[in-house]
This record gives sequence, structure tokens and C-alpha cells, in this order.
Amino acid sequence: MASCPIEDRIAIEDLLISYATAVDSVSDIDGICAVFTEDADFDLSGIGLPRGKGHGAIREFFGNVFAGTSHHAHHLSNFTITAFAGDTASARAYVIGIGLQKDGTRITVHGRYYFDVVRTSAGWKANHYHMDFLLPLPDSLAAAHGTD
Amino acid sequence: MASCPIEDRIAIEDLLISYATAVDSVSDIDGICAVFTEDADFDLSGIGLPRGKGHGAIREFFGNVFAGTSHHAHHLSNFTITAFAGDTASARAYVIGIGLQKDGTRITVHGRYYFDVVRTSAGWKANHYHMDFLLPLPDSLAAAHGTD
Amino acid sequence: MASCPIEDRIAIEDLLISYATAVDSVSDIDGICAVFTEDADFDLSGIGLPRGKGHGAIREFFGNVFAGTSHHAHHLSNFTITAFAGDTASARAYVIGIGLQKDGTRITVHGRYYFDVVRTSAGWKANHYHMDFLLPLPDSLAAAHGTD
Repeated sequence: MASCPIEDRIAIEDLLISYATAVDSVSDIDGICAVFTEDADFDLSGIGLPRGKGHGAIREFFGNVFAGTSHHAHHLSNFTITAFAGDTASARAYVIGIGLQKDGTRITVHGRYYFDVVRTSAGWKANHYHMDFLLPLPDSLAAAHGTD
Repeated sequence: MASCPIEDRIAIEDLLISYATAVDSVSDIDGICAVFTEDADFDLSGIGLPRGKGHGAIREFFGNVFAGTSHHAHHLSNFTITAFAGDTASARAYVIGIGLQKDGTRITVHGRYYFDVVRTSAGWKANHYHMDFLLPLPDSLAAAHGTD
Repeated sequence: MASCPIEDRIAIEDLLISYATAVDSVSDIDGICAVFTEDADFDLSGIGLPRGKGHGAIREFFGNVFAGTSHHAHHLSNFTITAFAGDTASARAYVIGIGLQKDGTRITVHGRYYFDVVRTSAGWKANHYHMDFLLPLPDSLAAAHGTD
């Protein structure tokens, strides 16, 4: 693959971090949408959650998530550019994601983010996002998480 | 804001990592002071701990912390430059901080570091540092931590 | 020390991440070997595990590890270049390493990776690797881990 210029690498890593930061605000759905193109494929089916298309689906999903969530913390690591072709790229990061529900339930997820990104006039944006697990959820949480 | 040159970004990220590394030595107070300007505002009031000014206050704080600590591990992630103006900048990082006390108590903190830094003849140094929590401490630990 | 060019810094960080990623595949021993020179010193004695030399020893070690492992997750952070001399360098990273055994045992390690790397015609490769612990293992796991 073409080598990814450092400026683009940093901008793409910043995009993934801005996603985690907005998710952890437990309120900033505009900040989440700003990470994605208007018609992005937002796909959490790999971790037993919905798949949707575009800002509307993203708003609906996080509206529901945030309604039940007290606190979030998503720590990214192992950032890697897995493909680069000038105006498109793919990146992967590991995530330790912790959610504390308003009902007191706490869940810790060890997974990976996969972002396909495209260069736009407003900078890099994601047009496809999916996740998988690095470690399985405990059985009790998998049930609560809707993966059974 | 002005764009942060990559060399400065890396130097500032290295500064935050050198802080975590010195804290995790459980001994290297000189290494901690080397991160900060002589008159830095060192403010942990956001997590229920002291606020002090300058190397003297930093030495006193870590003298007390290290006296009771057996091991430390502070894992930084989600590094972001939040402001840049040539010779000053602000940066944020997430931290998973684990402390093991000599009495066997173990505490895990999920929080954020906020550093204001200034370019000096000896490289970037922090003149203001504060923290907040991403996740609340468990009640039992919050009591031990002095946040109640 | 000489300043490490950004391209080399990123390539060396990518090498450490590719090691973690291959370890987390729980299968890709070729990917692990690709991180190391043919005669690398692979030394886990600092965490109570074997020390061996070269790809043969690495293959034997991970053959045994993977035979008993269900899932792995190794999250790197606090990446630092600790030495640089043009065609050789040393780097350190923190790791949160989680292993889930096929028998259901789960172990979490907080440690540090130390890599000595050398520039080759196929890019940077490690010719020495060792680890230490940031936090002690719980007594029950230390016994299972063979460190007692």
C-alpha cells in the first residue's frame, strides 16, 4: 500500500480519539456525528448491537445509549493504519471501554475499532465503522448486552 | 487555533509520558519536578486531592504519596493537543491509574490529565496541571481517597 | 542521544504494536517471528517465564502458550524511544495484558516491554526483548504463572 503521510496518520488517529471523547461525554451526539460522513455505515453488529446508516441512525442509537448511561470511559491504544490510498484509508485501534449504567450495572469491553475514512473538505471523516471483541463478555453481561 | 507542529506534539506527549513514568517509579521526585516549571500550578482538587504551587508543593505531595505506596501504574491514552499558540499549548490525555498501597489497598482510577505547557530553554514544561475523573470511584475507595 | 526521526519513531512503535497484534491473534506465530531478527534474544525471565534465542525458541514458546490460550488482549501505552543511534534504537512501552486460558483462568498483567531494535533491509526488527512487571501478580496467579 502507499505509505501514509504522518500528517494524515495523526489526523486519522485524532478522529478516532474524538469519537471516543464524544462517546465519553455521554451527551455530545453532534460531536459523534462530526466524526462520520452523512451516509456512514455504523455497524456494531460485531458486538451484538445495532447496525445503521447515516447520522439519523447514529443519533437514534446514542440517544438510547446515553439515556441509560451514567458514565463512559473508552481508552484507545495500538492505533494502526491498515490501508492508505491517498484520499481513503483504514485504521484500527484497540479499546478498553467501560460503561456505567444509571441502574448501577458496570460493563468492561475489550475490543477493536475498525474505521474506513475518507478525505473531505472538512478533513478526514469515517464512512464505515465496525467493532469486534478481543475478549468475550462474561455470560451475565452478554445477556444484558443483548448478544445471546 | 494554530496547527501544532509534529515535533512539538511528540515532545508534549513525551512530557506527559515522562510524568507518568516518574510517578510509577514510586521514588523519582526529581523526575516529576523536571516535568514542571518552578512555579507550576499543581492541582489535584478535581479528584479530591491537594492543590499546590511549585516544586516545593510537588515534592511535599509526592513525598507523602510515595511513603504509603508500594507500586504504581499509569497508562496514558487518547492524547490530544487542545490548544496551540507557538510557545504555549494545552494537552489532554486519558489515564488508567492503579495504585497499590503498602497496606495492601489497591485503587484504580479512570481519569483525564490536563496539562498547560510552555516552551522553555530546556524544552516543553508544564505550568498548570489538573485532573478529573471519567468514572466515579467506588464509595469505599472514595472514602479512603479523601473525596467524601 | 541522537534525536530519533519521526519516521523511525513511528516505524518502531508500529513494530511493537504488530507484536501485540500477533500475540493477540492466538495463532500467528509467523507474525510474531517477523518482529524479531533470526537470532533475537527473547527474554521473559523478568516475569518468571522462559528466555530463549532466535525464531526456534520463539516458535516453541508461543506454540505452548497458544495451545492453552483462548483469548489474548495486549493494550500498549506510554511508548518511549529510550535510545537512538541511527541504525539501532531502544524503545519501551507499557502493557496491560490479559490472557484467558482454555480452562477459564483469566490473568491480567501490568508490565513494560523493552525492545532493542535494529534497522534491516526489511525494516526495523527486534534483536532483544524483555519485560518486567509494573504491578505484582496476585499470589494465586503468580503460582499459576510459574513465578514462585
